Amino acid sequence: MAESSEKKEYLVGVDLGGTKILSGVFKSSLACLGRSKMSTKPQRGAKGVIERIAHCVEDAVDECDLTFKQVRGVGIGAPGAVDSDSGKVIFAPNLGWEDVDLKKDLEDKIGLPVFVENDCNICTLGIYETELETKPRQMVGIFLGTGIGGGLILDGKLYCGFNRTAGEVGHMVIEVGGPKCSCGNRGCFEAVASRGAIFRKIQNDVKAGQKTVLTEMLGPGLDDMRSGDLRKAIRQGDKYVEKVIEDAAEYTGIAVANLINIINPQVVVLGGGIITALEDEMMAIILETAKDYVMAGTFKGIEVMASKLGDDAGIVGGAVLARMRTK
Amino acid sequence: MAESSEKKEYLVGVDLGGTKILSGVFKSSLACLGRSKMSTKPQRGAKGVIERIAHCVEDAVDECDLTFKQVRGVGIGAPGAVDSDSGKVIFAPNLGWEDVDLKKDLEDKIGLPVFVENDCNICTLGIYETELETKPRQMVGIFLGTGIGGGLILDGKLYCGFNRTAGEVGHMVIEVGGPKCSCGNRGCFEAVASRGAIFRKIQNDVKAGQKTVLTEMLGPGLDDMRSGDLRKAIRQGDKYVEKVIEDAAEYTGIAVANLINIINPQVVVLGGGIITALEDEMMAIILETAKDYVMAGTFKGIEVMASKLGDDAGIVGGAVLARMRTK
Repeated sequence: MAESSEKKEYLVGVDLGGTKILSGVFKSSLACLGRSKMSTKPQRGAKGVIERIAHCVEDAVDECDLTFKQVRGVGIGAPGAVDSDSGKVIFAPNLGWEDVDLKKDLEDKIGLPVFVENDCNICTLGIYETELETKPRQMVGIFLGTGIGGGLILDGKLYCGFNRTAGEVGHMVIEVGGPKCSCGNRGCFEAVASRGAIFRKIQNDVKAGQKTVLTEMLGPGLDDMRSGDLRKAIRQGDKYVEKVIEDAAEYTGIAVANLINIINPQVVVLGGGIITALEDEMMAIILETAKDYVMAGTFKGIEVMASKLGDDAGIVGGAVLARMRTK
Repeated sequence: MAESSEKKEYLVGVDLGGTKILSGVFKSSLACLGRSKMSTKPQRGAKGVIERIAHCVEDAVDECDLTFKQVRGVGIGAPGAVDSDSGKVIFAPNLGWEDVDLKKDLEDKIGLPVFVENDCNICTLGIYETELETKPRQMVGIFLGTGIGGGLILDGKLYCGFNRTAGEVGHMVIEVGGPKCSCGNRGCFEAVASRGAIFRKIQNDVKAGQKTVLTEMLGPGLDDMRSGDLRKAIRQGDKYVEKVIEDAAEYTGIAVANLINIINPQVVVLGGGIITALEDEMMAIILETAKDYVMAGTFKGIEVMASKLGDDAGIVGGAVLARMRTK
């Protein structure tokens, strides 16, 4: 018994975001045994954040009545450009990081093998391994959150490209001269369909006199607005919010069509906070618009679906990465 | 001597277009020995066109003082969706073809092994094999002609996607609500930067009273306008044509940036009649715009270049395909 309980059979997945750190402990079957959540506090610098990651991993393992001796490895998704071979975070603007040796520094702290990937690549991996029964050769993951990111599975493997930055679908321009994007350009997919873009549009419209039940729900400043509030507003019959979300879904459908025209993947999976909260309101429009915009003959047999993993996509993907790399 | 001259060492590449058929005979080193050209006459139907292809191949081989006994195989690029495994053309609107068994029908006629691919895939293959000395793992080919098409080399191989239609970069929407495209949608890359789009814009502007030296060169109807006429007009100081071409180059740069953000290839090669005729006028703008629009960190070490193969890209690529498949 004692021997078997010390077998290194568990995996830890970590979703490192600009606001929060989420850790999950998984069996090698990828069943989740327990979780832990913590604020990121990026203002404390890379060293401080890495201490908090270590702490969050410890808490999750302890929550499951396990010890580090029983853990095979830790897989982390980081928001930015990652050199997955070395485990370094090259550039992560949300964290204020440049050239942080996340793998080495965290391994030094917790004494477990650590593996690092871009967060959207990790989510794509997690969805591919746990949500798709027959593994397609090609899959595109698109994640609509504060920003928009993506990940590509090609030939059954995570595809990263020459500089390991492939899958930056959020900065595909779909409306030349359109709204300003955080990247400095105009008309990026992220600038018209991310949570940030949607919230900014609503806040500007409200300032300009637009009526919406959101101000009754959240106050005139719309402080602490969340994706779920948009769903509630639509279900209360708010036609303005409904139109805003329809527009975002149409843009998303056009982006999906672009990716099908370019990459022609067997499966496109949509995820992220916006899709999790507004799946019922958005998916039918996304699908219909994508069909309208793809080239004749390119869509046959292709599936466009919403991920059911919600916030768990990152930690599941982290566990998949750790399992892959410790084989 | 007699024996060696009957060795099957030569390859034939065919570029099948809506207007013309071009055949070339190549050594296995891909040096071109001779060419033949013929109008396509798609109105004669698939059977008639296939007879013309056979005739064009015969002429090219005869031009080189060779016989079919010395030819290893024929590789053809067809404009449309192609099932490269079976050699069938699924759908080729420029030819009016649906489900044409080009491989079998042509093999029956000429008694040589025939291999078929999409024309832009073929051009991409030709450029990859003959113009790039150190083979990149990933390359994107973009061809600006009457329409706009593309091809992808990923992991060192031609990438075709789930329905074999990957690389349809011309129908990537880059300007939601923009000019109408031949595909029925609006704002496709092809609708703002192809020869068709450029000619349509100039013709409409001239009808609306725009002055340009093109009317002096070609008459008021601008009949038989060619890409080279635009170059001549710009070199004669026509600021209007210069601006039209600058705009097309900017759109092309944005499309290149989108593809770098999504696929992150090591090399992007531009080709097609528009680039061949207007390389000096367009490439610097394309490069500058692409750099403006890519995500920070994604462009490092990536090369964006113009193909020097011109009209030969298709026949060279056909020879590459025939060489690959007869190995």
